[in-house]
Amino acid sequence: MRVYFDNNATTKVDERVLEEMVTFYREKFGNPNSAHGMGIKANLHLERAREKVAKILGVSPSEIFFTSCATEAINWIHKAVAEVFERRKRTIITTPIEHKAVLETLKYLSFRGFKVKYVPVDSRGVVKLEELERAIDDDTFLVSVMAANNEVGTVQPIEEIVKVVKKKSREILVHVDAVQTVGKIPFSLDELDVDYASFSAHKFHGPKGVGIAFIKKGAPIRPFIHGGGQEKGLRSGTQNVPGIVGAARAMELAVENLESVIEHMEKLRRKLVEGLKKLGAYIITPLDVSLPNTLSVSFPNLRGSTLQNLLSSHNIFVSTSSACTSRDERLSHVLEAMGIDRKIAQGAIRISLCRYNTEEEVDYFLEKMGEIMSFFGINENNHR
Amino acid sequence: MRVYFDNNATTKVDERVLEEMVTFYREKFGNPNSAHGMGIKANLHLERAREKVAKILGVSPSEIFFTSCATEAINWIHKAVAEVFERRKRTIITTPIEHKAVLETLKYLSFRGFKVKYVPVDSRGVVKLEELERAIDDDTFLVSVMAANNEVGTVQPIEEIVKVVKKKSREILVHVDAVQTVGKIPFSLDELDVDYASFSAHKFHGPKGVGIAFIKKGAPIRPFIHGGGQEKGLRSGTQNVPGIVGAARAMELAVENLESVIEHMEKLRRKLVEGLKKLGAYIITPLDVSLPNTLSVSFPNLRGSTLQNLLSSHNIFVSTSSACTSRDERLSHVLEAMGIDRKIAQGAIRISLCRYNTEEEVDYFLEKMGEIMSFFGINENNHR
Repeated sequence: MRVYFDNNATTKVDERVLEEMVTFYREKFGNPNSAHGMGIKANLHLERAREKVAKILGVSPSEIFFTSCATEAINWIHKAVAEVFERRKRTIITTPIEHKAVLETLKYLSFRGFKVKYVPVDSRGVVKLEELERAIDDDTFLVSVMAANNEVGTVQPIEEIVKVVKKKSREILVHVDAVQTVGKIPFSLDELDVDYASFSAHKFHGPKGVGIAFIKKGAPIRPFIHGGGQEKGLRSGTQNVPGIVGAARAMELAVENLESVIEHMEKLRRKLVEGLKKLGAYIITPLDVSLPNTLSVSFPNLRGSTLQNLLSSHNIFVSTSSACTSRDERLSHVLEAMGIDRKIAQGAIRISLCRYNTEEEVDYFLEKMGEIMSFFGINENNHR
Repeated sequence: MRVYFDNNATTKVDERVLEEMVTFYREKFGNPNSAHGMGIKANLHLERAREKVAKILGVSPSEIFFTSCATEAINWIHKAVAEVFERRKRTIITTPIEHKAVLETLKYLSFRGFKVKYVPVDSRGVVKLEELERAIDDDTFLVSVMAANNEVGTVQPIEEIVKVVKKKSREILVHVDAVQTVGKIPFSLDELDVDYASFSAHKFHGPKGVGIAFIKKGAPIRPFIHGGGQEKGLRSGTQNVPGIVGAARAMELAVENLESVIEHMEKLRRKLVEGLKKLGAYIITPLDVSLPNTLSVSFPNLRGSTLQNLLSSHNIFVSTSSACTSRDERLSHVLEAMGIDRKIAQGAIRISLCRYNTEEEVDYFLEKMGEIMSFFGINENNHR
């Protein structure tokens, strides 16, 4: 049995998504920018994909742009907005628990003369609203906050965050990293007063290599990648039509029966929590304000990486922190910002589920975890 | 019969490439940055792909970086190098016949305070070496020239161009847009003294969404997309492993039996030239210094777009200029730079072949072209 519990890092492409993609690799392979029949056909499918995504997110197709990944979308939005404001304002506000795509981009911008303020989070990883309000000043032009955290799963009160910002000044722009929302919580942009949002197809059973940027009509933007003028002149480069069509199909499938998918993942997570608690685990994820699929737990006397390796040898795949930094031995910046004890942080592993995980997989995982704990002499009795 | 003669715009993914990609979508879908077994496996395949590409290009794997497209690679290299030099030097030299990816990126840099000089080309589209030499001065830090032109197929004497630059100063960096070379002419970087080069997988029967940047060891570079630190910290964002594996496989296939592929395409092109000349075509492509697969021709009394549409209705796909600008009604900047008469430029169509095109397709194309010319009252006799 193979147990893949690392779905916040990447997911398996859904067979129905792959099937559709293959017809584009094989038959409908025209360049959507070619003016002949095959190009026009490819372009029609590209625009249909854009409409699908826009409809699901509750926005207009003209507000949806395809990129090569969420990291690119995030770089684009932050750098372009900074370029627009560079002669007028200098301050960007964010949180210390953002994905590296945001943090490293802002670090770069700070080298380029911008000021970056980090609003603290509480022990659950929730942004402190009063601190956010206090941080905003006349020099602030952009606030960037993730909707849900990839490592511990904390879901932000994003509506309230946006209200706090927009109440201070409607001119301050808001970006939401929504990469971890699709297929995990209901998420729509139509009633959310944000200006920019980023998504990644491979996080919801779509292909790697496709990101989605939402750029609200009228929100300032500039091209980041210049060239042939694709994506209305804002993102040049031949569009990855098979990937984009696959991404749109994957998003459709991700919101289909979302309620029952959430229920299913929550049920598995509850079972995991119970089983792991019995084995002495410390639960890091704030269960009441988090993604239903994400569970960060720690065995304070073990290293997370040791546990990850042992589980991997049993064909069970979990993460220590996020995939992007997991090769790195430094402690998670997210756990640090939440004020998690160093020893607990070192022992952390992240389990992230998807709609395809089963109870049998959870049972198998708990069984192997039990064996590992017994081997180390860490068992139920020790912790009672 | 479907006749796809627009292979400089994009190509069909080779079945052997697709087959390999599918196993990565289906089974080996791990995130190459995950530290567990599935991540390590994905990473091994990613590195194997890098080795394959490096070997074919005659460079070291550590000099190969994967991007989302050649346009991204081109933006990255030009903007990063400009950032490195911004406080010291300001001049970049290029040609007026580059792809929009280069031209628009340099236009952006000129808005940011850089100086861009355009070295003229002759009537064949070949860079004038003496003019290049004259253009270089102490303020020059980068020279960017394409190896082969996408619209008319002109192949530059790239070795001589590099020699002219490096003879002036070894400190001046050289970028080569090599997008149109793979599978069309022998092209290797090992004896070419360039610092940067860009490639695109979907131009050689690989997937859309994968570009390749060659960055010579020691050549100055900075990240363009910041985040998780992938690609040795230089190109963040989860790597598109299925696409990258496909790109490497496609490159392997593109250089397999290249000589006989070239011979095959040349034979088809000769047949096209003869047949089209009989129909009154003006041959724009300089046949002796061009890619064997590319043929730009003009029927001066017809609009290229009209011809393209008529052919499209017969399931024959050709381009008017490059796909990236073909929706645009303005005249080709390439033909303009070559000094091609306005009337000829308006009537231009581009035929670009691949290894899968056949003599039957050429016959069918010529037959339909004959019918179209007869319909318009343009036939052999008119032109004798």
